[in-house]
Amino acid sequence: MTLMITTASILMNSSTYPGMISGKFGGTPGAMHKHPNIKLKRTSSWGLQFKAPAKVNTTKVGAMDWSMVDPGPNMVSDLGVERMIQDGLIFQEKICIRVYEAGPDRKASVETLMNHLLETSVNHMKKTGVIHDGLVSEEMSKHNLMWVLKKIQMVVDRYPKGDIVQIDTWKTTHGKNGVCCNLTFRDCKTGEILVRASSFWLIMNKKTRKLSKFPNEVRAKLEKFFVNKPPLVEQATRTWSRSEDNINEHICKGLKARWTDLDISHHVNHVKYIGLILESVPKTIIERYEIDSMTLDYYQEFTKENILQSFTYILTNDNAKMSNFDIIDCQHLLQFEIDGDNSNIMKGMTRWRLKPGKK
Amino acid sequence: MTLMITTASILMNSSTYPGMISGKFGGTPGAMHKHPNIKLKRTSSWGLQFKAPAKVNTTKVGAMDWSMVDPGPNMVSDLGVERMIQDGLIFQEKICIRVYEAGPDRKASVETLMNHLLETSVNHMKKTGVIHDGLVSEEMSKHNLMWVLKKIQMVVDRYPKGDIVQIDTWKTTHGKNGVCCNLTFRDCKTGEILVRASSFWLIMNKKTRKLSKFPNEVRAKLEKFFVNKPPLVEQATRTWSRSEDNINEHICKGLKARWTDLDISHHVNHVKYIGLILESVPKTIIERYEIDSMTLDYYQEFTKENILQSFTYILTNDNAKMSNFDIIDCQHLLQFEIDGDNSNIMKGMTRWRLKPGKK
Repeated sequence: MTLMITTASILMNSSTYPGMISGKFGGTPGAMHKHPNIKLKRTSSWGLQFKAPAKVNTTKVGAMDWSMVDPGPNMVSDLGVERMIQDGLIFQEKICIRVYEAGPDRKASVETLMNHLLETSVNHMKKTGVIHDGLVSEEMSKHNLMWVLKKIQMVVDRYPKGDIVQIDTWKTTHGKNGVCCNLTFRDCKTGEILVRASSFWLIMNKKTRKLSKFPNEVRAKLEKFFVNKPPLVEQATRTWSRSEDNINEHICKGLKARWTDLDISHHVNHVKYIGLILESVPKTIIERYEIDSMTLDYYQEFTKENILQSFTYILTNDNAKMSNFDIIDCQHLLQFEIDGDNSNIMKGMTRWRLKPGKK
Repeated sequence: MTLMITTASILMNSSTYPGMISGKFGGTPGAMHKHPNIKLKRTSSWGLQFKAPAKVNTTKVGAMDWSMVDPGPNMVSDLGVERMIQDGLIFQEKICIRVYEAGPDRKASVETLMNHLLETSVNHMKKTGVIHDGLVSEEMSKHNLMWVLKKIQMVVDRYPKGDIVQIDTWKTTHGKNGVCCNLTFRDCKTGEILVRASSFWLIMNKKTRKLSKFPNEVRAKLEKFFVNKPPLVEQATRTWSRSEDNINEHICKGLKARWTDLDISHHVNHVKYIGLILESVPKTIIERYEIDSMTLDYYQEFTKENILQSFTYILTNDNAKMSNFDIIDCQHLLQFEIDGDNSNIMKGMTRWRLKPGKK
């Protein structure tokens, strides 16, 4: 069977990246734009921004020989297939979106996409033998370190719906002490790209709960698997702000994590944060729109005991007309709801598009 | 590759059913029993009860020829394998518990087990061609009918932990207008049975939200796949009651469903109910114990708008000593928290055992 990796076409053709926008977009009150050919009235200081990876003209990129890669339509359809490509730099697996991973519109939910982002990255590291115990390497375990998520950026061109999906994942560096996990979802039948995401991870000391530098031995083991490329989905600048005029604010207070939100790391799973963020998104948006792209910034952990408040700020000064827009941009905030401590747990920016058939 | 189905050994050897208890157990205040050889001080009117399937001495049972079945240890280890056995009466698939399906103790969560219960039943019906649109057959779709869950009964001998699991599922009748989906989880390496469950489903009219009889054409298509056997996990009698003396009551009020709790059927997914039930289980139990067996009775739907209250009643009159028991029996109640309407959404009975290493 031919080894297939289709990531190459993404990285090498950033200018034709479907659904990816280079430069600034969105952001202006009242300025709602058609998707995917968004024409801006003017840019805003706080709009979502993605930078597509730089265009590459050679077939030899960094440590990866993309010429070996054949992004043909002859996808294998058997599930459970997983393989390492390019000496383990890329990990590929095929999954089927399960019934319970679909939302009311029968499509994979955003939570499901985020779950697979973690799953595939972990499977990659398991396959390389780097992971020793749970989710960490032997060296991390020795230093009492664990991974923490700093940021997720995701662009969804189409939500998988009963499709067999091919996931490709590879790792890049993120500063001196971080790792970026990159991922594409692809429809196995058509080869169509469905989702692109980059997540940025740091390491934390389990006892002090403070961020840590990479000990040399930890880095040494990991960097063998780093691809010398920028993140797949990159946010050029980040200017979340509440200072815009005419922002509609929606609040949901008294939120709590459930026992079932705790994960293998004994803290509230990062995927559950988006569920709490969505609680403050108005019903009109949830029911008529779907997330087109998002950036989530994680600031701190919270526990089962904490009470939280979730805010959504919508970029329109006309609530009544909201459901007429093709695209809606939102900002989000998840905070502690404690007297004297409303510190931030997460900030987020989402772009929503009308669901198919909701026009 | 040899076709393998190991359910036969369960159905034919009910007397040696590990973890299954014939007759009454549990239930008396202060009467905590060792697991798995539970000796009763006296039976209670409200304890959890399971009836093991009747012992069968022939190899030809109902419509199924069990003699063809080889429950040997030579399990295949490749994932994604699914197959129909006995003319489609049994559906078998192998799955890997994903990282995000594990709880803090790295084991598959109860929610995960329940998710696969639905998943495998749906995959079975998809494979037979019965399912036409979403989760229903063409005939059900024509009559505007959908499935609703009435009851789940589950016995967990061991929670899967990074195991490759073989799931076998088959359907039996449940009264005139119901279907019972039966399921076993088995460790692929050892052949060990991990989980047994039976879920009982009725059909509801989508518009009136009332239960419906089986139209003949719906039944005709389904009954071809019914195995002439009792449910795998059967509750002999059911006497949930709050009348016992000295029951410790724990309450959690103000619960709400999240947007992410809605499923393909546009209502709060049945698996999420257990998450809300667990909210009223004291931390001491959640952290030191795991569910050994449970019965969940579903009474009605609720929506994203409803506010709920969850009750747990613990069978001990000595809270301080609670963590010393090997086994703890609980009753649960999920209700609307509305003035004038505290009607029941779910009742449940759980048995908890000390987690390994928590003695």
